[in-house]
Amino acid sequence: MYPYFDIAHAALCSLHVREDLGSGGLGFTRRHPLATWLCTLVELYAGGMLANLFLGEPVLAPLKNNQHIILYTLVWYLIFYCPFDAAYKVCKFLPVKLAFSVMKEIYRTKKVYDGVTHALKVFPSGYLIALMVGTVKGNGAGFLKIFERLLRGVWTPNAMEILQPSFPTKACIAASIIFILDKKTDFITAPHSLLYFGLVVFFVYFKVSSILLGRAFGAKVAGESDKSGGESKPTADKKKE
Amino acid sequence: MYPYFDIAHAALCSLHVREDLGSGGLGFTRRHPLATWLCTLVELYAGGMLANLFLGEPVLAPLKNNQHIILYTLVWYLIFYCPFDAAYKVCKFLPVKLAFSVMKEIYRTKKVYDGVTHALKVFPSGYLIALMVGTVKGNGAGFLKIFERLLRGVWTPNAMEILQPSFPTKACIAASIIFILDKKTDFITAPHSLLYFGLVVFFVYFKVSSILLGRAFGAKVAGESDKSGGESKPTADKKKE
Amino acid sequence: MYPYFDIAHAALCSLHVREDLGSGGLGFTRRHPLATWLCTLVELYAGGMLANLFLGEPVLAPLKNNQHIILYTLVWYLIFYCPFDAAYKVCKFLPVKLAFSVMKEIYRTKKVYDGVTHALKVFPSGYLIALMVGTVKGNGAGFLKIFERLLRGVWTPNAMEILQPSFPTKACIAASIIFILDKKTDFITAPHSLLYFGLVVFFVYFKVSSILLGRAFGAKVAGESDKSGGESKPTADKKKE
Repeated sequence: MYPYFDIAHAALCSLHVREDLGSGGLGFTRRHPLATWLCTLVELYAGGMLANLFLGEPVLAPLKNNQHIILYTLVWYLIFYCPFDAAYKVCKFLPVKLAFSVMKEIYRTKKVYDGVTHALKVFPSGYLIALMVGTVKGNGAGFLKIFERLLRGVWTPNAMEILQPSFPTKACIAASIIFILDKKTDFITAPHSLLYFGLVVFFVYFKVSSILLGRAFGAKVAGESDKSGGESKPTADKKKE
Repeated sequence: MYPYFDIAHAALCSLHVREDLGSGGLGFTRRHPLATWLCTLVELYAGGMLANLFLGEPVLAPLKNNQHIILYTLVWYLIFYCPFDAAYKVCKFLPVKLAFSVMKEIYRTKKVYDGVTHALKVFPSGYLIALMVGTVKGNGAGFLKIFERLLRGVWTPNAMEILQPSFPTKACIAASIIFILDKKTDFITAPHSLLYFGLVVFFVYFKVSSILLGRAFGAKVAGESDKSGGESKPTADKKKE
Repeated sequence: MYPYFDIAHAALCSLHVREDLGSGGLGFTRRHPLATWLCTLVELYAGGMLANLFLGEPVLAPLKNNQHIILYTLVWYLIFYCPFDAAYKVCKFLPVKLAFSVMKEIYRTKKVYDGVTHALKVFPSGYLIALMVGTVKGNGAGFLKIFERLLRGVWTPNAMEILQPSFPTKACIAASIIFILDKKTDFITAPHSLLYFGLVVFFVYFKVSSILLGRAFGAKVAGESDKSGGESKPTADKKKE
């Protein structure tokens, strides 16, 4: 799937980091390029790193592919420091964002599937482990958000993913369960490829509708967290843009 | 030792999580069942997870036993969501709590012993490693308390175990040292089974007296931490009950 | 290099922990000797522990050498609890501090080299991994500073190393890059031993000049962090002494 899906993944993650910086973000990216780059890397590799930690493998192993790193660094550079902010504006343009999001969701399904398969190979009857690894591979950035912000010196303990699971987290949990059922039981009689395709459609459908129909999911979650959490949430700036 | 000791372990850990939630805990458990469940799991498996991290093994490996997870989930459900709060009240009833505590202390001794043995197998001359792994296996919940609270969005950096080591931590350190001496030197001439039994009696004796004689140890520690720490300590609610 | 370089390393790390405690440090070391000792150990072994975590090896593995631990504990005891504070005063005496710093920088070069070599053995083409492991081995204490402070109950999220990389961090990054280039490409035609020697000279030269010429690097960094960070920085006390 190299390099198109990776470009989409990198662009959306860089966008996410940039929007998470909030209104003072531009100055921050100028003053701390190293921290910005590392935060983007952590966001990009969050799923793989967490899954490796859970399964006792080298935490930095996902970084071993140099081609990916060069590509990601290029995309990161364009999103943050492109002249006239062109790359950022292009990525925020709805059709482009939509296409990238669709590609990212296809990628996400693959990552959940890889995570579940790998975990079940290491622990053949560890269903809960497979569920956790699959979820974390699919939405690692959500779970490492706190740590990624800490790398920039921002500490938001209430932004814990499991307190207000976002829609991708819930979808990844559901997808992991379905993949585990498919692998380990006979409950699911549909052929594997159909199942996989169905999950991709499910992910893409909800993502596209959440982008097109506006604040369907994202805003609801943000609204909830506003009520319960309160201050110290840089994500709240997203809505203003 | 399955399942009676595990029931005792799960019940006391669930109780501990529930009491740590403080006065607003009931609402929290209703709003965030996932976070409550994960916190209880982290508390239950804290020792194994930390020890595995220290020894370079898969952090999630302790979760591979599905029977344990089902049992723990059942106990967790009963403690938090049982109709009329029956399970909680039964567990708080002194004789039941006493019996569970005795079982948990027997279990604790076994865990310290397993930890020391395992660490000495991996690093035959790593006495400090064995000491740390044994301590952490015996009282993992204490060391992961900060992280477990973070999972619920509560951040209490002064609640660090090593700043005010609780009695179980000190006892686990002592037990680990005795086990290491027994395994690696000839200082201890008593037969191994007698030594093991003696340590069980030691753990049980202090636990029982701390429960029966009231605030012997727990309250002293809580009082100290009140003086030095101050606000942001949900454990302070324990005394009111 | 045992034991002279290790003594220098242990003395400087203990000094650093003691100075990081700030003005109320003396009382803290009396009340919490266990936390003080563990903080010093974490500072001493920070590089090895982080590198092992990154490469999927046992986090506590660096602690397996008992001779080192005894030596380090001895030095820690002398620095913190020596009668008349003699050891502390001797170490603060400029010629002694200079000698220790030179030895520590020689040690640092060795650690960066070991880290890069080891990482390249595990991931032969993982250049970024080797760079990270080398940097972290060379200046692990900087990256674990936040965690080390947390062990003492102090939480300073803005003291993130990558936000304001200190001079040792930048030097370690440069040294890692040079070692990787030397190992993997033909750009560097100088013999390996000359290169190694040159890096040692580079590290020592800057360290000595930073100590002798006063606030050349340290003060600049501290000044910057004062402007951007603000309160909750125990390191600020260093300048007063």
